[in-house]
Amino acid sequence: MKVVIVGGVAGGMSAATRLRRLDESADIVVFERGPEVSYANCGLPYYIGGTIADRSSLLLQTPASLHRRFRLDVRVQHEVTAIDRAAKRVEVTDLTSGVRTTATYDKLILAPGATPRRPEPLSAIPTVSLRTVADADFIHAALDQPGARVIVVGAGYTGLEAVENLVARGAHVALLQRGAQLLSPLDPEMAAPITEAVRSHGVDVRLGVTIDRVEGARAILSDGDSIRAELIVDAAGVVPETALARRAGLRIGRTEGIWVDASHRTSDPDVFAVGDGVEKSDLIGGDAALVAMAGLANRHGRMVADVIAGRADAARPAVATGIVSVFGIAAAKVGWSEKQLQAAGQAYYAVHVHPGSHAGYYPGAQALAMKLLADPAFDRILGAQIVGRQGVDKRIDVIATAIQAGLPAAELAHLELAYAPQFGSAKDPVNILGYVAENTRAGITPTIQWHELEETQAAGATLIDVRTAGEFAAGAIPGAINVPLDELRDRASELLREPLIVHCQVGLRGHLATRILTQLGGDVVNLDGGYRTWSAGMRSRLDADDADRSVRAAAA
Amino acid sequence: MKVVIVGGVAGGMSAATRLRRLDESADIVVFERGPEVSYANCGLPYYIGGTIADRSSLLLQTPASLHRRFRLDVRVQHEVTAIDRAAKRVEVTDLTSGVRTTATYDKLILAPGATPRRPEPLSAIPTVSLRTVADADFIHAALDQPGARVIVVGAGYTGLEAVENLVARGAHVALLQRGAQLLSPLDPEMAAPITEAVRSHGVDVRLGVTIDRVEGARAILSDGDSIRAELIVDAAGVVPETALARRAGLRIGRTEGIWVDASHRTSDPDVFAVGDGVEKSDLIGGDAALVAMAGLANRHGRMVADVIAGRADAARPAVATGIVSVFGIAAAKVGWSEKQLQAAGQAYYAVHVHPGSHAGYYPGAQALAMKLLADPAFDRILGAQIVGRQGVDKRIDVIATAIQAGLPAAELAHLELAYAPQFGSAKDPVNILGYVAENTRAGITPTIQWHELEETQAAGATLIDVRTAGEFAAGAIPGAINVPLDELRDRASELLREPLIVHCQVGLRGHLATRILTQLGGDVVNLDGGYRTWSAGMRSRLDADDADRSVRAAAA
Repeated sequence: MKVVIVGGVAGGMSAATRLRRLDESADIVVFERGPEVSYANCGLPYYIGGTIADRSSLLLQTPASLHRRFRLDVRVQHEVTAIDRAAKRVEVTDLTSGVRTTATYDKLILAPGATPRRPEPLSAIPTVSLRTVADADFIHAALDQPGARVIVVGAGYTGLEAVENLVARGAHVALLQRGAQLLSPLDPEMAAPITEAVRSHGVDVRLGVTIDRVEGARAILSDGDSIRAELIVDAAGVVPETALARRAGLRIGRTEGIWVDASHRTSDPDVFAVGDGVEKSDLIGGDAALVAMAGLANRHGRMVADVIAGRADAARPAVATGIVSVFGIAAAKVGWSEKQLQAAGQAYYAVHVHPGSHAGYYPGAQALAMKLLADPAFDRILGAQIVGRQGVDKRIDVIATAIQAGLPAAELAHLELAYAPQFGSAKDPVNILGYVAENTRAGITPTIQWHELEETQAAGATLIDVRTAGEFAAGAIPGAINVPLDELRDRASELLREPLIVHCQVGLRGHLATRILTQLGGDVVNLDGGYRTWSAGMRSRLDADDADRSVRAAAA
Repeated sequence: MKVVIVGGVAGGMSAATRLRRLDESADIVVFERGPEVSYANCGLPYYIGGTIADRSSLLLQTPASLHRRFRLDVRVQHEVTAIDRAAKRVEVTDLTSGVRTTATYDKLILAPGATPRRPEPLSAIPTVSLRTVADADFIHAALDQPGARVIVVGAGYTGLEAVENLVARGAHVALLQRGAQLLSPLDPEMAAPITEAVRSHGVDVRLGVTIDRVEGARAILSDGDSIRAELIVDAAGVVPETALARRAGLRIGRTEGIWVDASHRTSDPDVFAVGDGVEKSDLIGGDAALVAMAGLANRHGRMVADVIAGRADAARPAVATGIVSVFGIAAAKVGWSEKQLQAAGQAYYAVHVHPGSHAGYYPGAQALAMKLLADPAFDRILGAQIVGRQGVDKRIDVIATAIQAGLPAAELAHLELAYAPQFGSAKDPVNILGYVAENTRAGITPTIQWHELEETQAAGATLIDVRTAGEFAAGAIPGAINVPLDELRDRASELLREPLIVHCQVGLRGHLATRILTQLGGDVVNLDGGYRTWSAGMRSRLDADDADRSVRAAAA
């Protein structure tokens, strides 16, 4: 059997090595357009910043090492330019010599990856993305002058990692984001701590803007401002690389990624496709979606090898688990955001909690901000977001596992997670999320969200702040009346005449207050996540207003 | 409704506070025999060692704070001595005054906890367990003399935490363990790194021994040795505290814990019981089991409050997730061990892997030792053990979640876990475990365990070490022939005449070698976990031999 693989990084190389393990006699040829195969593209930002000091550690394999160990025929700087599906043959150009050849296949695996969605105007300021070792080399060299001025376009995972590492190298960084918040996979109130951390490290954050054009050494922004820079790093997202597949007449999905079935077979049964160029099935929405994640590329590459070797298998629908660390704060998500659910008109309920990363009595615990989204009818978990300095990765992985296993939100309360005081609490943050979810969904403590507060107040509800007088004095929500929780029972009669919203710092005392007042006959809701979630939401709203002004300036 | 709760630490206090949240009008009385309620008993070792510097941070609540916030009537130093179930009344002794009273109840919740299984001979050397704040105070004070000599009896979670913290205070520590290994919830080869870490910190580890008697300032051990000490810390495990329940005629389970149904109702429908005094349902074995864990006590206390308040609920069967950190190494487990499965005659297959805690190209990754046990028929996960310096808690929590959700072992490969290079790998260690499990169970790479090597060699199989010549020279398994992996294809013909066992350092190259040789016609098995698991196993066997000699010396 002859198998040709187009693309030799994550998905393509996983397919090649697994196929060899299953079939010692297969003839396996890998064509890679670039100069390297199997490099650590998720490490590129950290090579720029210097955390990864040794460039060679990014290069996990070479054609020679892959031949020695796996008898793979790996040809770098070879571009597959056409597929003749009838003849089961690809046309290949050797990019170093220009020589064109063909290669036949029994099975073909496409792993073309994605390509940067470049800012439209290419310019006098060098503009580079951060996808290849060559990109990283270019940026690394550009930072050798101290105080380089760099514009990063796009504040997703890669953009934020780039920002952190550019700052580490002493660059002056401006971060441009087309949308109204950084890290758009998260909801705005969850992204707010990231925005603050980025700003506090001297980064010039601009929301609601793009680069309109470049004039000499200055980038002119869509809102009319201009920024001098010696380098532009394009991290404004990627689109599937589908040119070859389109030319071959393979079906392209609604998302503009290559269409595949559950076994990652394309519309041609002898052609498979994996990685960022392919659309995946989304577990939450049930539809096709683009999820550009290294883990999925690796996993699907391996699975395709199994299928080709005769072992039936199918990709599991994706939940798009992601994490990024910026200036010591980790932000992670899985599934859908509240924004996405709202845009799709999906019913949901939301929960915010702020437990410590481990037991409070053991030194070093850090507050986590956690958000859970679930379906009110069946309590299916629809998404989660976690931000904090410690233990973020653990909790998102537990929730990602729960989602993939189909556990309802309330079941998070019952998970028996490892507890010693360095690692967690007798009630782990994930358990807390489950308890609060169940209290919310069962109506034990009805809640409103931070973005529903104003309208609920406007409808005539009185806001009671049940924190201490000291906490109230240090910052309070406009219009709130301070009645500390422990005084609430004694003062209930004066409060119960009208509808009430209660709130505390993070939501727990508000829950207790809601329970007390409800049972005393009150009409009460708790402000979910308390003052902390509300104030993060308000800060994100200031940013959104700012972005809106920029967009209006651009339109004017 | 009047609810009486006996015991005011984890389970009792969770029940009391949840019940108040559900029922503002309930009359809730908590009797606690000791001087404190709701203290952080899992923090006690760290108070002794000084990591928790402020004693007051162990005391999470007081009777006064619990009255202010929850209107609980909490009476410390009050012992419930009898239950008159017919009259629904308890007899209570005020331990400070000796005054005896009674209290009636509609519902009674027993949360008596467990009691140390003390070393039989009480002695002239002060002997103290580590269950209460008073215990910790006593030990803390005893360490004020520098160089105190301390014997710790029992090397479970608490015993190991005690050892670490005693060493931190400058004590000379001897650790006595009745069994053949430390940390008996783990299998011996997994516990070996912990044993080494403890010894490397100067602790005198004695296996297979108990204290026979004390003569003056010396403890005479069962094997005839003697050790001078000023203090004995008893961490030799606990037994359920069932005296009150027995006197009341409540049913006691086969495990000697208080019997309860799924809602934690005892044999008397108006009496509930939670915490370490109660037997739980074991998810893996399906039978009743004793699982003394703070998380379960808290969870079941809360659940009983829900049941009493009319909200039907049931405890989820326990998986006994546990973790301990000793001298920078964390060891965690969930479910059953291989020893347990063997003793019960259960069919299982085992997998050992040693992936990095995060991507190897990003600095600071540490090797994890991971073991998975699963059922060969249905691939149900039966247990897992993880040991390492980083990321142990995360991976055990993911696997614990998978077990509780009923995911089969192979499905671990498909979990979409958060990947950035600081946190994991594109194929997370948990994914790797799933892949190796599937390769093992499907027979793609048949394996043998470290403890099966000798008999397989004796049956005539040749052992091939496929590591490099340098690795081989630095330490090899007796009888192994070195054929580096990348030379294997060329030298296969000379090897394929007889049955083969192949091995490498951690199992991966052995897997590749097995695949190559099998497809070339060989009869091959891979040594699961490679040299690293085998050598850990061998070190544990030396300890077991040592323990055996001590036991024989005691019998002689």
